[in-house]
Amino acid sequence: MFGAVAEADDKAMQLRPVGRVESPLTDPAAAPKQGDEGAPETTIALEPGYAEAAADLRVGEELIVLTWLDRADRETLAVHPRGDLSRPREGVFSTRSPARPNPIGLHRVRLLAVDGTRLRVADLEALDGTPVLDLKPVLGGVDER
Amino acid sequence: MFGAVAEADDKAMQLRPVGRVESPLTDPAAAPKQGDEGAPETTIALEPGYAEAAADLRVGEELIVLTWLDRADRETLAVHPRGDLSRPREGVFSTRSPARPNPIGLHRVRLLAVDGTRLRVADLEALDGTPVLDLKPVLGGVDER
Repeated sequence: MFGAVAEADDKAMQLRPVGRVESPLTDPAAAPKQGDEGAPETTIALEPGYAEAAADLRVGEELIVLTWLDRADRETLAVHPRGDLSRPREGVFSTRSPARPNPIGLHRVRLLAVDGTRLRVADLEALDGTPVLDLKPVLGGVDER
Repeated sequence: MFGAVAEADDKAMQLRPVGRVESPLTDPAAAPKQGDEGAPETTIALEPGYAEAAADLRVGEELIVLTWLDRADRETLAVHPRGDLSRPREGVFSTRSPARPNPIGLHRVRLLAVDGTRLRVADLEALDGTPVLDLKPVLGGVDER
C-alpha cells in the first residue's frame, strides 16, 4: 500500500518536456553564465501538442522560460561562485549554478518571432537540446525588484 | 533498447522535493493569486539533507522560490485569465495560472528569518504542504525589467 502511494507521488513529480532549445551553444564550458552576457539568438521548438498553450504569445513580449538543465550535476550542494576557484564555496541555493538538486534553469527572454510552435528568442543562454519545461509572462509587480 | 533509454530519460526528469511550504493557506479558492497580494508569513521547511545548499542564505535577501503546484491540473492548455469567466480563454503560457503542463510555481520572496533549515519568508502565496523545488538568488540584470 505505502509502496503504491510513494510510486504515485513520484510519478506526479515527473516533468514533461514541452519543447527543446535549438542553439549554436553546444559546449557547457563556452556558454555565457547568464542570458544578458552575450547569448546568441535561439529557437524554442515546442512540441506540436502544446500549440494551444502558446497561441497567445506575441512578438516583443518578455517571457520567463524554465528549462531542465539536463547536463547538470544534481548531487553537488556547494560550488565556487561562477566557477571562480579563488572564491570560497557557497551553498547552491545562494548561486545560479546549474548544479543543484533540481536543475531548473530560469531565463528571462524577449520573443523575436513566432512561426507556429517555433519561437525565436533573444537572451536565452541554454545549450542545444535542453528540454523546455514552461513559459510564463513577466509580471511587473512580482518579478521586478 | 529504446525502452531502456526512454525509461532512463524519464527517471532523469524526476523532481526531488527539497522541502515543503508551511502556511495557513489551505484552500486554493481563497489563496491570493500572487505573493504581493496579501500572502501571510510562511515557512519553508527544508529537508535536513539540504542544509549545506542553504548555508549561505542571509536574512533580508530576496530569493526566487520554485515550487511544485501539486494540486494543479496538468492537462488544461487554455484558461480564463485570473479565473475571470468574462475574459476570453488564453493559452496557459500567456498566464500565471497553476494549470500548465509542468506546474512549477515561481515566487519572489524576502527572507525574514533563518533557523537551521527552517526559512521564514514574506510574500509566498503557496498552499500548505506544497513541495519546494529550488531557491535561487535574485540577479539584478537578469530578473529586472
